[in-house]
Amino acid sequence: MTVIAPDAVCTPQGLKIGHTVVVEDGSIIGVDPAGRHPVDVALPGRVLLPGLVNAHSHAFQRAFRGHVQWRAAGSDDFWSWRDRMYAVANGLDPEGVQAVSALAFLEMALAGVTHVGEFHYLHHQADGTPYADPDELAKRVIAAATEVGIRITLLRVAYARGGPGAALRPDQARFADCSPADVLDALARLQPLQSDPRVRLGLAAHSVRALDASWLAALSAWPGVVHAHVSEQPAENEACLAEHGRSPTAVLEHAGLVHDRFTAVHLTWPLQGDVDRLAAAGARVCVCPTTEQDLGDGWLPMEPRLRLPLCVGSDSHARIDLFEEARCLELHGRAVAGRRNVLAPEGEPDGLAHRLLQSASAEGARALGGAGGGIAVGQPADLVAVDLRRTAADGVPPLQAAAFVATPEWVDHVWVAGRAVVVDGAHPRQEEIRRAAAPHLSRAAV
Amino acid sequence: MTVIAPDAVCTPQGLKIGHTVVVEDGSIIGVDPAGRHPVDVALPGRVLLPGLVNAHSHAFQRAFRGHVQWRAAGSDDFWSWRDRMYAVANGLDPEGVQAVSALAFLEMALAGVTHVGEFHYLHHQADGTPYADPDELAKRVIAAATEVGIRITLLRVAYARGGPGAALRPDQARFADCSPADVLDALARLQPLQSDPRVRLGLAAHSVRALDASWLAALSAWPGVVHAHVSEQPAENEACLAEHGRSPTAVLEHAGLVHDRFTAVHLTWPLQGDVDRLAAAGARVCVCPTTEQDLGDGWLPMEPRLRLPLCVGSDSHARIDLFEEARCLELHGRAVAGRRNVLAPEGEPDGLAHRLLQSASAEGARALGGAGGGIAVGQPADLVAVDLRRTAADGVPPLQAAAFVATPEWVDHVWVAGRAVVVDGAHPRQEEIRRAAAPHLSRAAV
Repeated sequence: MTVIAPDAVCTPQGLKIGHTVVVEDGSIIGVDPAGRHPVDVALPGRVLLPGLVNAHSHAFQRAFRGHVQWRAAGSDDFWSWRDRMYAVANGLDPEGVQAVSALAFLEMALAGVTHVGEFHYLHHQADGTPYADPDELAKRVIAAATEVGIRITLLRVAYARGGPGAALRPDQARFADCSPADVLDALARLQPLQSDPRVRLGLAAHSVRALDASWLAALSAWPGVVHAHVSEQPAENEACLAEHGRSPTAVLEHAGLVHDRFTAVHLTWPLQGDVDRLAAAGARVCVCPTTEQDLGDGWLPMEPRLRLPLCVGSDSHARIDLFEEARCLELHGRAVAGRRNVLAPEGEPDGLAHRLLQSASAEGARALGGAGGGIAVGQPADLVAVDLRRTAADGVPPLQAAAFVATPEWVDHVWVAGRAVVVDGAHPRQEEIRRAAAPHLSRAAV
Repeated sequence: MTVIAPDAVCTPQGLKIGHTVVVEDGSIIGVDPAGRHPVDVALPGRVLLPGLVNAHSHAFQRAFRGHVQWRAAGSDDFWSWRDRMYAVANGLDPEGVQAVSALAFLEMALAGVTHVGEFHYLHHQADGTPYADPDELAKRVIAAATEVGIRITLLRVAYARGGPGAALRPDQARFADCSPADVLDALARLQPLQSDPRVRLGLAAHSVRALDASWLAALSAWPGVVHAHVSEQPAENEACLAEHGRSPTAVLEHAGLVHDRFTAVHLTWPLQGDVDRLAAAGARVCVCPTTEQDLGDGWLPMEPRLRLPLCVGSDSHARIDLFEEARCLELHGRAVAGRRNVLAPEGEPDGLAHRLLQSASAEGARALGGAGGGIAVGQPADLVAVDLRRTAADGVPPLQAAAFVATPEWVDHVWVAGRAVVVDGAHPRQEEIRRAAAPHLSRAAV
């Protein structure tokens, strides 16, 4: 039994002051007034949050952080960025994929992320030839997460074409499967990895660009969580309307993929009726605000922002800061709407901060098929301590400080399933993980 | 003589690796290849940047950080926020103004800010009665900056009415002057404070809301820098068009205030011809992206973003992070334009990062009337070391890391005029300054 004593605890019912959190066998067995148990871990000045959930990640893209920020104005957009991203993707061998993924997951752990949804589309050798073990790279990515000690839901991607009526480009060969059955078979082969309770599997239907109607319909047999990139760019909508006569969301709905296990990633450019479709199904949106700005996608409009459950992801990992992603849900909404406090529930001073922090925890957990994400008896002991003993937090209520001011550097203790992963701001294997990744990081601008 | 040896130095010509910066009598006297001098301050793993310049600050607003983030959705906007801000402004006595300003300036110093432009409009007692010394509060704010050790340009605000044809509201009495001559007299009385080379004076014409045409014309006699809030909200434009038949920028131009010493703060909603007016005059824009989102103002459009020199400010101090303000110049531009690298100069891999960091340093210095902001011989020794020995910076080129990834916590050494203000991430008087501010910070939601 471990008794953790922060100054304040963020529970599903709101902030509790002067309480301890009691952990046993990986779960929370008590949230009790201080004094009831001898304290094992005293955390003065900290607020304890539920572990942050990064619901949309392409871990390998950490390899080129800072190397795609300079193309001359007027000559760069989402699509030219994608070309350069492919070049990096195709340059990584299995060791590189594992090492760079471990670096990304290490940075996540240090930033308070206890569970990542990895939208995994690197399957084969760069020319499309399968590895001797066809699941080599999926296993590498999962190994990277378990090495760091965070939970992973591997969202195994189906990717079959270069666009409507277009074959795969040579630089997309690494992502491709021959049939929907191959995708479901891969998921079946990976099932035994779930014997580690930190590992879960999901399906990613990459996008309506990459999959036609017959693929999408066949993939609807998958009984677990389904994620898809949806309406990230206007050009995707235009191509989809030309092919199907309906929006990407409507195409996914028609294929049977829009249900309460479905997460639409981005939805920056929803079309008429799309929000109704998702709301009716109980689906949600994963917003990736820092990436959506970095790639020039735009901002989520107000209708989905107000009507649908929102979770967040750091996606391309231009930065890894779930506090920033979560606060952008509100702040970008303010700038779109020309008003303040657009997501604030009625009457509760902490309500808005609490809601944003839940988007970065419980809502993300739901998107990944888990029940976790709250500090309550019976929940997994995924916990993050945020140090508020900083000049920037002086005078600021704890949840407001975490939601509106904190940076990853404020995180100093992290537990996953009751196991201490980050202690005093450090991970026990961080230098080793950083050394292993170094040779695989881009050294020249791409 | 002090010789500082970081890994890399950000100079006006770009990044220099393996150079030392030599400081004497508050100025830079050398940027020389390593080995020429014995090193006094070794800074392995750091990039040395010019001191950051926060060109638009209302320091007292730090008092209510985190206390205005919760009003129920639909009932809050810029104007209702302003009502609550006034209540805080009117609750601070001179000790409170000084203590809260010192806290804000301390947080700035810790975040790498070496020069603040303080847009100062708290002049009198809350009921409008002048203090025994009519410049009491201006002197308090300047004392707060010198106590922390950063440069301040006090932009002394003129404020005369509640809006077109409207008398001041009772809660605006604290800001008011009786005549333009009173404003210029106050500036004359404050001149002796400039015997401290870290203190400079400027004029702030609050806005076309707060000043009529005759006031604006009279204030144009001021020979130094002039700042004004311009077109922050659509309602300001509408009222101005109704009163004058021209835009706020055109009204200021007509009054003789738009020149190369002029900085338009915000310009979120420029009207037809405004960018031409500012460009023709050699004027610039101070953008405050985090505040402009927080208040639901919106985002700077592309035309001024591309055509005018840009500096940045943390304004309401919802956060104090000049790296974030600077990167938003580019990232918000991408989301507005639907493209990437909108501010990138041609051909230079470091060009965009360099430009953003210059907006947060040299451009800000120009807006405040100074020549500084670059690490070059003859410049003031205002320097900031950013520690890149972090997991999040692994593999990222130094200027890209500072511009696109760094947080205030990465700053660990700061010099102002050659004097070490922050050493190893700490300010020598920080605990005393924090204790003094604590009783004046809002304890209840406002």
